[in-house]
Amino acid sequence: MQVIHHIEELRAVLKGVRAKQPGFTIGFVPTMGFLHQGHASLLQQARKQCDFVVLSIFVNPLQFGPNEDFDRYPRNEARDLELAEEEGTDVVFCPSTVEMYPKPVRTKISLSIITEQLCGASRPGHFDGVAVIVTKLFQIIQPDAAFFGLKDVQQVAVIKQLVDDLNMPLQIVPCPIVREQDGLAMSSRNVYLQPEERRQALALSSALKLAEQRINEAADVLLADELKQMIRTHIAQMPLAEIEYVEIVTYPELEPVSRLQRSISGEIVIALAARFGKTRLIDNTIILLSK
Amino acid sequence: MQVIHHIEELRAVLKGVRAKQPGFTIGFVPTMGFLHQGHASLLQQARKQCDFVVLSIFVNPLQFGPNEDFDRYPRNEARDLELAEEEGTDVVFCPSTVEMYPKPVRTKISLSIITEQLCGASRPGHFDGVAVIVTKLFQIIQPDAAFFGLKDVQQVAVIKQLVDDLNMPLQIVPCPIVREQDGLAMSSRNVYLQPEERRQALALSSALKLAEQRINEAADVLLADELKQMIRTHIAQMPLAEIEYVEIVTYPELEPVSRLQRSISGEIVIALAARFGKTRLIDNTIILLSK
Repeated sequence: MQVIHHIEELRAVLKGVRAKQPGFTIGFVPTMGFLHQGHASLLQQARKQCDFVVLSIFVNPLQFGPNEDFDRYPRNEARDLELAEEEGTDVVFCPSTVEMYPKPVRTKISLSIITEQLCGASRPGHFDGVAVIVTKLFQIIQPDAAFFGLKDVQQVAVIKQLVDDLNMPLQIVPCPIVREQDGLAMSSRNVYLQPEERRQALALSSALKLAEQRINEAADVLLADELKQMIRTHIAQMPLAEIEYVEIVTYPELEPVSRLQRSISGEIVIALAARFGKTRLIDNTIILLSK
Repeated sequence: MQVIHHIEELRAVLKGVRAKQPGFTIGFVPTMGFLHQGHASLLQQARKQCDFVVLSIFVNPLQFGPNEDFDRYPRNEARDLELAEEEGTDVVFCPSTVEMYPKPVRTKISLSIITEQLCGASRPGHFDGVAVIVTKLFQIIQPDAAFFGLKDVQQVAVIKQLVDDLNMPLQIVPCPIVREQDGLAMSSRNVYLQPEERRQALALSSALKLAEQRINEAADVLLADELKQMIRTHIAQMPLAEIEYVEIVTYPELEPVSRLQRSISGEIVIALAARFGKTRLIDNTIILLSK
């Protein structure tokens, strides 16, 4: 496994790989590091699907708001490299901030509609920052496929739209959420949680489970508002929970849904965000309504 | 020479070219058609520098404002293909609007600062539209180099910035303005000019020539405002001329210059736009001040 810090070195290595093995496919897993089993599952999927696997580790300042946790975002490069090696990664790209942003970026990429609700509403500019870094990394690595976890379902939707709108020549592969034994969705930010916050945070995944059951048992139409209220009530039982949003939208367009019925073709996603203490967590579940 | 209308067909052809001849370089000349000797010079430069030359012809609706000339923009595909063939083009890509924009584009690319003056000021959204189509074409064709005429000097600057900010893996090659015998910068829009407008439009290139002389003769510092006024006065002698702007900025950053002196390192550009009747023309000259 090679660890590379500079763009030009990475380009040279990948050029060499492509020249030696024409037709070799490159799988790419972009991350902000502090890797967990969710990231491992992305590396495994990339390994399964591609000949060469590139992991990037870069905490992207552009996607953090001024009052967000950029400075305290957890980092542990040594452990990350161990996990990457265990998963058979070929190259880890760990650029510095100045390597990725040598000058102030004057190019802004913004996606309308799809960034206007869910996390986009409470994190203005977040997805603009994601779009820029992902585009930069795609241009540097030129992967055949890139792998993203569905915990950040809006991120997956935004990147699919970006790739589609701009004809980027790669496949976006969304991968299932990986959960702890007790249901908590894996996240680098879980490390922030105090024990009691950690316990109460289980209400997020259990609320989604409840909602899924309710949908499966429903004979007829369900109103999205009722379902959202049920989820809110369930989470609100936890005194430390501060709900930011609970939304039901189509996937991957993220357009509002008001009535859930079998006649809806395609998938919907129930997505939510809540704070426990200072820690903001998100979770979601994608449901295929039509049978 | 192959003429291709569909993205997937073009990708397949280019994939074949790359597979057969590893290391083959692809040169790309994006145009809106109605080709003239300016475009021919871009194709010649591409031919000189690259192994395989792709020309695109696409009148991009996204870069025209609601009151601009999208509908009446001149088109002549048969003549364009002849010229392309004469210049040894390998592939001409002529997509339909629906091929390039099958769905409304939700991705907006905007560049700050560099689009705020010159043509950017009078054509809001123009360079956003240019950025999107150029990015799409770059992603489809994945050229090693792309060739742009310096008549649209702000376009060159914007695309350089875009490519730089987003780490796009290609070289942007700016090519000199090609002029008619009498000095008028070649443009597809020159065909709009009535004979008397055509005659008076010569004031643009002659004003730039005058300014260059003035700079060359200057012993010491020149004030940009004085030079701009000299240019305006010269053009205003033509009763049909309606000046839109005359600006002096650094190249390629396009930052304002107030004093021209030899100690300025790098290049400056004197850029102008004016209408003759209904036809908007632009012209410019790039000058190296330091000696």
